[in-house]
Amino acid sequence: MTYHPLGDMLAALRESTPLVHCMTNYVAMNSTANLLLATGASPAMLHAAEEVAEFTAMANALSINIGTLSAPWAESMQLAARTADTTDTPWVLDPVAVGATEFRQRVCQALLSHRPSVIRANASEVMALAGLASQGRGVDATASVDDATHAAMTLAQRQRCIVAMTGETDVITDGSHHVRLTGGHPLMPRVTTLGCGLSALVAGFVAANREHPLAATLAALACFGIAGHRAGQQAKGPGSFQVAFLDALYQLTPEDLSSQSQVETLHAV
Amino acid sequence: MTYHPLGDMLAALRESTPLVHCMTNYVAMNSTANLLLATGASPAMLHAAEEVAEFTAMANALSINIGTLSAPWAESMQLAARTADTTDTPWVLDPVAVGATEFRQRVCQALLSHRPSVIRANASEVMALAGLASQGRGVDATASVDDATHAAMTLAQRQRCIVAMTGETDVITDGSHHVRLTGGHPLMPRVTTLGCGLSALVAGFVAANREHPLAATLAALACFGIAGHRAGQQAKGPGSFQVAFLDALYQLTPEDLSSQSQVETLHAV
Amino acid sequence: MTYHPLGDMLAALRESTPLVHCMTNYVAMNSTANLLLATGASPAMLHAAEEVAEFTAMANALSINIGTLSAPWAESMQLAARTADTTDTPWVLDPVAVGATEFRQRVCQALLSHRPSVIRANASEVMALAGLASQGRGVDATASVDDATHAAMTLAQRQRCIVAMTGETDVITDGSHHVRLTGGHPLMPRVTTLGCGLSALVAGFVAANREHPLAATLAALACFGIAGHRAGQQAKGPGSFQVAFLDALYQLTPEDLSSQSQVETLHAV
Repeated sequence: MTYHPLGDMLAALRESTPLVHCMTNYVAMNSTANLLLATGASPAMLHAAEEVAEFTAMANALSINIGTLSAPWAESMQLAARTADTTDTPWVLDPVAVGATEFRQRVCQALLSHRPSVIRANASEVMALAGLASQGRGVDATASVDDATHAAMTLAQRQRCIVAMTGETDVITDGSHHVRLTGGHPLMPRVTTLGCGLSALVAGFVAANREHPLAATLAALACFGIAGHRAGQQAKGPGSFQVAFLDALYQLTPEDLSSQSQVETLHAV
Repeated sequence: MTYHPLGDMLAALRESTPLVHCMTNYVAMNSTANLLLATGASPAMLHAAEEVAEFTAMANALSINIGTLSAPWAESMQLAARTADTTDTPWVLDPVAVGATEFRQRVCQALLSHRPSVIRANASEVMALAGLASQGRGVDATASVDDATHAAMTLAQRQRCIVAMTGETDVITDGSHHVRLTGGHPLMPRVTTLGCGLSALVAGFVAANREHPLAATLAALACFGIAGHRAGQQAKGPGSFQVAFLDALYQLTPEDLSSQSQVETLHAV
Repeated sequence: MTYHPLGDMLAALRESTPLVHCMTNYVAMNSTANLLLATGASPAMLHAAEEVAEFTAMANALSINIGTLSAPWAESMQLAARTADTTDTPWVLDPVAVGATEFRQRVCQALLSHRPSVIRANASEVMALAGLASQGRGVDATASVDDATHAAMTLAQRQRCIVAMTGETDVITDGSHHVRLTGGHPLMPRVTTLGCGLSALVAGFVAANREHPLAATLAALACFGIAGHRAGQQAKGPGSFQVAFLDALYQLTPEDLSSQSQVETLHAV
């Protein structure tokens, strides 16, 4: 498999500064906005049923994360996702802890009917969405990436979307092409909501690179991998990691992204 | 125009540590609280209809920011703003993205009837509130400050309040006196919700300086300008900027504020 | 009074990484999650009535903080607290500003009937819960720790729970044993929601040390005391303090905790 240079994806993001409508959990809102601004996208957070469809229709992308879900938010998420589907606006689903409660499973199933462009999830969540046994313990991923790679491919084929399954190693697939990405740093799981922010960043990258959704998704994950690695070199713990990570995303160049991403093509498993 | 030394405004804030009742968006809550604590005010966040009026009545100031608006919050905001108006408590309106949806315009029009002391907004929002064409793209300001200065003056005169319009250059006006303020750093727009926090800080400054609302507003903006400039000198990106900015607000002295603020009197345009 | 070495409590936390179901205020969510992850616990934030009991039943601990209370959240908190009581899951109540409004007093009284394991509060809140005069000014503590020590003992005896009253000096009591803890740094009150995060950390420590709830509570507070002191040595203000504090919690060893905690046994006053 060949794909567009990842650096081009980042250059396009910075040139177009896509407006990403983020419906995300309360824990992640601030950090998500900062991650997008640091990298080069433009975040906007709003969720009221009175305005959500109106706003999604004018945004360049939508990102839905169900972390701190509630009934009114679930309703608004349906409105936004339906609008994104109707207006052909790229949208990303982040099904936080979908295997943990029936409420989450029900809401996610309804959201899937609006055809997300990308599902960004950990291994447990991918397995739960694919209908395989979930060993999800709250928001942790306890299934191994190897166990879940097959589930990711199955889910991508069934939903006709990209699945970006992140963990120590990331797996990105559109059902036909499968890629593995390494990088990052062991401190990353010690900082909350980095994955949530990544979902919104994927939305921005896909919006800025409409012709290349798989490479765009990969580029977003590679930004995290490289910036995470760099931040980890300087950090003394999760506090200094967060600071260095935002700085590294800001300083990251398209050339860095093209030359330093650790991508490997996978064959179906 | 002459005005009170800005350093006096900061000294008064630190001496009285005004309790600022903040009704702000989910993205901004944590950073707003930290910005107020670093500078010398005392934040409290609560919003339930069951208690909001009771609390506003005992606070020294109120700050309302409609960022992540919803119907229940809009109702509580009306209760709080009405209480502030009735009890003569200074209050600040931050009309985030008011031009973006009908819902926001409707809620803001209702809030304006409770006579805010100060409106803190970007150029697009000022133009939308003034009834002029808004080019607002979500939460971004795309109207130039020059285009919007006239709108700010018009809005201040119509509402009989102070308008603090922030951007690369700030314009502060009470309808009769018009001031321009420069400072800050290009990294500031790369950090989320600094403007939201500034609105709450303005509320604190006005509460601590009831006789001098225009100078108090100017002092709050000047704190951001000087601290932002200093933080920018040390920062490697938006992560280290945030850290240095909180430290700079904490270290800022009244003498710094009086001597380093870059204020220029404007004539009506 | 003798108690288990505090370092053992931290070692147990890190070995079991307890899943702490956090129902906390919007201001505190992100910082609470990061404080738990840095120290070694696993946070999960969710609050919908549709799922909250289901989740509490599988978590290792529950922490309820009423900071940005609303009627739907109050209802969910009752469901979660009742579940924790029924399933014998340790749970912590953080009654933010309980003395400030009638709404908060009513909600806290109902929550107390579900028998919290620990109440973590400042002096004003302890006095309000104990039914003594509160001088609470919003979320600030204006009652002195000395004034409130008696109230803490009374409350612990009446509720048959641990009361962890924090301030410049902390007082921890189960009604029979009373301990005083010093440490920390004057910058800590200049950073928002550290106390809120501490409540959730107490929940994690108690879950990881079911046989020793008093020592576990003390260990959580001692982590904050030592890490706060260390962070304060390096910080230039509240921005760099936050970064250094997360790093210090991450770097803290069980040996540090056993050797450096400043604990003193109290006699009833």
